[in-house]
Amino acid sequence: MSSVTIPNNKVNEPVDHEQPTTRRLRLLSLHLNPPTTTHNNNNLQLEACSSRAKIDVDTNQLSTYLRGKHRDVQEQVFEYFNSRPDLQTPIEILKDEYRELCMRQLVGLVREAGIRPFRYVVDDPSKYFALLEAVGSVDMSLGIKMGVQYSLWGGSVLNLGTKKHRDKYFEGIDNLEYLGCFAMTELHHGSNVQGIQTVATFDPLTDEFIITTPNDGAIKWWIGNAAVHGKFATVFAKLMLPTNDKNSLSDMGVHAFIVPIRDLKTHKTLPGVEINDCGHKVGLNGVDNGALRFRDVRIPRDNLLNRFGDVARDGKYTSPLPTINKRFAATLGELVGGRVGLAYSSVGVLKIAATIAIRYSLLRQQFGPPKQPEISILDYQSQQHKLMPMLASTYAFHFATVHLVEKYSQMKKTHDEQLVADVHALSAGLKSYSLSICREACGGHGYAAVNRFGSLRNDHDIFQTFEGDNTVLLQQVAGDLLKQYQEKFRGGAFAATWSYLRESMNTYLSQPNPVTARWEGEDHLRDPKFQLDAFRYRTSKLLQSAAVRLRKHTKTLGSFGAWNRCLNHLLTLAESHIETVILENFIEAIKSCPDANSRAALKLVCDLYALNLIWSDIGTYRNVDYVAPNKAKAIHKLADYLSFQVKNIAKELVDAFDLPDHVTRAPIGKQSPGEAYAEYTQFVGF
Amino acid sequence: MSSVTIPNNKVNEPVDHEQPTTRRLRLLSLHLNPPTTTHNNNNLQLEACSSRAKIDVDTNQLSTYLRGKHRDVQEQVFEYFNSRPDLQTPIEILKDEYRELCMRQLVGLVREAGIRPFRYVVDDPSKYFALLEAVGSVDMSLGIKMGVQYSLWGGSVLNLGTKKHRDKYFEGIDNLEYLGCFAMTELHHGSNVQGIQTVATFDPLTDEFIITTPNDGAIKWWIGNAAVHGKFATVFAKLMLPTNDKNSLSDMGVHAFIVPIRDLKTHKTLPGVEINDCGHKVGLNGVDNGALRFRDVRIPRDNLLNRFGDVARDGKYTSPLPTINKRFAATLGELVGGRVGLAYSSVGVLKIAATIAIRYSLLRQQFGPPKQPEISILDYQSQQHKLMPMLASTYAFHFATVHLVEKYSQMKKTHDEQLVADVHALSAGLKSYSLSICREACGGHGYAAVNRFGSLRNDHDIFQTFEGDNTVLLQQVAGDLLKQYQEKFRGGAFAATWSYLRESMNTYLSQPNPVTARWEGEDHLRDPKFQLDAFRYRTSKLLQSAAVRLRKHTKTLGSFGAWNRCLNHLLTLAESHIETVILENFIEAIKSCPDANSRAALKLVCDLYALNLIWSDIGTYRNVDYVAPNKAKAIHKLADYLSFQVKNIAKELVDAFDLPDHVTRAPIGKQSPGEAYAEYTQFVGF
Repeated sequence: MSSVTIPNNKVNEPVDHEQPTTRRLRLLSLHLNPPTTTHNNNNLQLEACSSRAKIDVDTNQLSTYLRGKHRDVQEQVFEYFNSRPDLQTPIEILKDEYRELCMRQLVGLVREAGIRPFRYVVDDPSKYFALLEAVGSVDMSLGIKMGVQYSLWGGSVLNLGTKKHRDKYFEGIDNLEYLGCFAMTELHHGSNVQGIQTVATFDPLTDEFIITTPNDGAIKWWIGNAAVHGKFATVFAKLMLPTNDKNSLSDMGVHAFIVPIRDLKTHKTLPGVEINDCGHKVGLNGVDNGALRFRDVRIPRDNLLNRFGDVARDGKYTSPLPTINKRFAATLGELVGGRVGLAYSSVGVLKIAATIAIRYSLLRQQFGPPKQPEISILDYQSQQHKLMPMLASTYAFHFATVHLVEKYSQMKKTHDEQLVADVHALSAGLKSYSLSICREACGGHGYAAVNRFGSLRNDHDIFQTFEGDNTVLLQQVAGDLLKQYQEKFRGGAFAATWSYLRESMNTYLSQPNPVTARWEGEDHLRDPKFQLDAFRYRTSKLLQSAAVRLRKHTKTLGSFGAWNRCLNHLLTLAESHIETVILENFIEAIKSCPDANSRAALKLVCDLYALNLIWSDIGTYRNVDYVAPNKAKAIHKLADYLSFQVKNIAKELVDAFDLPDHVTRAPIGKQSPGEAYAEYTQFVGF
Repeated sequence: MSSVTIPNNKVNEPVDHEQPTTRRLRLLSLHLNPPTTTHNNNNLQLEACSSRAKIDVDTNQLSTYLRGKHRDVQEQVFEYFNSRPDLQTPIEILKDEYRELCMRQLVGLVREAGIRPFRYVVDDPSKYFALLEAVGSVDMSLGIKMGVQYSLWGGSVLNLGTKKHRDKYFEGIDNLEYLGCFAMTELHHGSNVQGIQTVATFDPLTDEFIITTPNDGAIKWWIGNAAVHGKFATVFAKLMLPTNDKNSLSDMGVHAFIVPIRDLKTHKTLPGVEINDCGHKVGLNGVDNGALRFRDVRIPRDNLLNRFGDVARDGKYTSPLPTINKRFAATLGELVGGRVGLAYSSVGVLKIAATIAIRYSLLRQQFGPPKQPEISILDYQSQQHKLMPMLASTYAFHFATVHLVEKYSQMKKTHDEQLVADVHALSAGLKSYSLSICREACGGHGYAAVNRFGSLRNDHDIFQTFEGDNTVLLQQVAGDLLKQYQEKFRGGAFAATWSYLRESMNTYLSQPNPVTARWEGEDHLRDPKFQLDAFRYRTSKLLQSAAVRLRKHTKTLGSFGAWNRCLNHLLTLAESHIETVILENFIEAIKSCPDANSRAALKLVCDLYALNLIWSDIGTYRNVDYVAPNKAKAIHKLADYLSFQVKNIAKELVDAFDLPDHVTRAPIGKQSPGEAYAEYTQFVGF
């Protein structure tokens, strides 16, 4: 029989009129004598699972499996900030102070703790991403500021430039002397990068480029590190070259240029550069986003990042790539590393939010059966329904990002085009998840800033927008899928990630099997074969029907109009594909787990992830009779039941994320529940 | 043929190197010569609607219908704050300053603008709620601070006290001399009010009550106005009366007491009262929430709010109500006014968020057909899918709150029990809606604090928690429904709001009609009869199946366990009921609208509201064959198409909310799109 373990709060009930010192002593004693726990014979919802024991999860085993090979650098980060309380971000801080603090945090990490992120970017991307996750867990602003410096500014110099740029800038970027910006977005153009209007005109007389902002709409906007700290910016602009006709210029498309914006010694803004502050943001106020306007700023010809296109002394253009579009795609393709970093950091935030919300939900008691003690709010089906699928997604995303980073590292070595597409798809799908549910699940105490949901959500919120609005990225994923679908019919191959489509498109496009549509046993529903089949079926069906609809509408609306007409359908297709890849990965990750109990726990979590998603689009499955009515009901029932089962090991599952209290920080999210309320009342001043 | 009107931005394109004064003049000139608009022959998605003209909405007519009878007081509020820029909340402000500013705003409104909210509370609740909506639109912290003073502290004195209390406190509450708090929630108990531990013991020797906080868990927590400004608090505590046996006390249940907490003249905290600051919150930082601990604080016997239970000089208890539970229910029932106010304010926030997000989406252009101008992002199906259902819900909620306030006013006059239940249900269902979609829909510029989504969301976010966690309130609604369902079988009557259940339960419980399940014509799907039938069918089905499941599980799990086992089901039932009531109201509101074009516009919006909700639970409808597969597809298609149609009049629909620019405030949400970007660049300093 399964049982619910609830800490016996009476043991820790603060004594009235206790002096602060006495209280502190009592609290300290809890470290030595952890509160005794009693087995509360809470038999809610148990009839259906009386035959199954609660999985005895060994948190250490599970945690070891999750941690990966770069835990050391993460611990180094955690330890450094734990040893420097002066660098801890306070609950309330004004924007300007926050930016300075964030800069001090970054400098401390690099110059004092001796972490050299730019080396990792080059030598071992997976180590860099692990670092980024840890840094983001400490403060998301710091994570983003670091990402701007090393992934965006540093990454553009490394990946779009050539040896001369690396030789000149590597050391300064690494040691933070050359703090830099990534100036792509303009006031009027974010997603549509090809629509940017900033120009870089080559002047053959002086061998320079002239960088110009032609109108207000072309002001570079939201540029991280620009408002206060940046010395340089990688500026994306249309390269204009003189033609034989002296009065005209030829537009060579978007290129990247290194533009110094502040004096290296005096830090004064350089002539011709105008910098304003984008001001207070919804979150991430430790990052100094600014707006840049260029009034005919001259830079040496060498400052063109010339890997994919170069200009000679005489103004002649050369490129290893044949067309503007190919060069543009290659340029943007090199920037996917930033997005991989965001996906990684995003999962880090999810882990913290899940940890705090679930620990508090185990601690908090409210209502109970008549004349019996109150029960923990995580014992309520509604609370399980809010938090357990979220926990399952966190696990699913964790394994997906681990996989993503592996793919990315391979891609950096092999430059395989299929891998590029795979990395793009996964990174697009992983960087967004709403955290509101966690705040809501924690009621009033979740609204106290000290308990962190506000800053976690506000900082995290922009993830679905920056480095590519998700709506736009998902369209690119859908576009890739359709391209591959069309190539299949011309005999081409699917990229690795969507090989399931190659293998089984025909199977999936035939009528669903009326026999299996009625199978509703738990063994069947928890069989990875069924789950994968359902996910793949949905993706294949959406892909095939999208192709048919697009062909039909293109005749009357043109290709742009047809695409827009099917846009919601295409976004669903992209999400469905990404979910399929995530599930495949999760299933593989379970197989590779060496510890049997950890494996069983992960299987439970994975089943919840899969069945919850199937249920959330049950209308589609029902509509094609992929599942019969009773099977749909059985899926719903099992998803609820799995939430209950996962709840029974929820404490262990969040403990396995291995986030020390000094990183999670929220008083209501303490690992040892006996301390939570006491820490909270102390924080308030009692 | 329908057409999309897009402002011709070229006209307003700022000129490079323009001097600030020149720019200002040019912008001012736009007021006199509004930018010419061109009819962009955007024929996306139009084939299916080529026969229908865009509705020619007269914003004034629609606005007049929406405004209601208390627009004057709302305009008074808007004008007052427009005339006092010094009282405007800045983008960035520290908690302590914000609290003082918020207090000055409230004092200005009452003592300078001459608005007397407490009079309205008594004489005309609908005027009070209209005021609250307007005040919340200016600043939600101010709305909440005002609500604490007049709905909660003032409301408890009026509704739980008797004439002596009104005589003594009315004037001071109204003119803000007696600023007060509502001290119900404790650290360990929010939703479970009956579990609070604070005690009020009668001392017959001195004719006083002794208010005591017995342990840390009983500290009053989250108390608005407590940290800084409050002089009094209505404290909820268990009333303890001496028994004949001198050593024991009798617990009479939760009662409310007026406890002075600060000196009226010196503002010093009174002896025995300990006040701490709950600190920085996720939002609403203009409100000073504090924590209160009472160390045997003595108050006169007269300070018991004695409407539902009184203590005589000799300690004898009398009450017009027979049991503790009845008294508790009556006490809580009187507090529903606060929740009605929240529902009203919540809709006010939705209107602002929808206005800003939709205006920006009309202004913002990104991508377009090859070699053609970019199109506005609201022309994308995905953006319509995000924002149009949200706009439809805002309209639906608007009419529902108007209805709610009418019911509430009736209830205050008649004290009809059925009305109490109706008001409770609607107020519970209306006070929560996620605003995240608006921020996301506005991408990066939605992340600038100046554009307000951050504060709107962070302030609004707690609405689903305070004055009753929605999960708990919805359970009460489900409980009421079940009670009425059982009474029906004993021949009782349903309350007015759920009369549809009385009338047609039997119809709804029979098998769906296999003929109508196949009807899929637009006329049928847009017929209010079909829509209402679908909503009612779903509610009836959920109600009946919940009753059956509860009965079954009660046998093995007991009533508490059975309830928890069915909790998600019960929450869905409550939501379904509330949605049904909202739809009924929306349909009635359309019928009453005198202007034909406004009516047509509202009908479109209502159809979107209804079909979008049907589609979002299509699995349930399909599972019982209430709709056939093709009908399900037709509903999906029509919902998408209605989003497109509503988009065509979206500008007029938000203009009809009639929120002046100085209230919406976001630069990207200007009514005149020509100014939006320019105001934004000016804000940043260009």
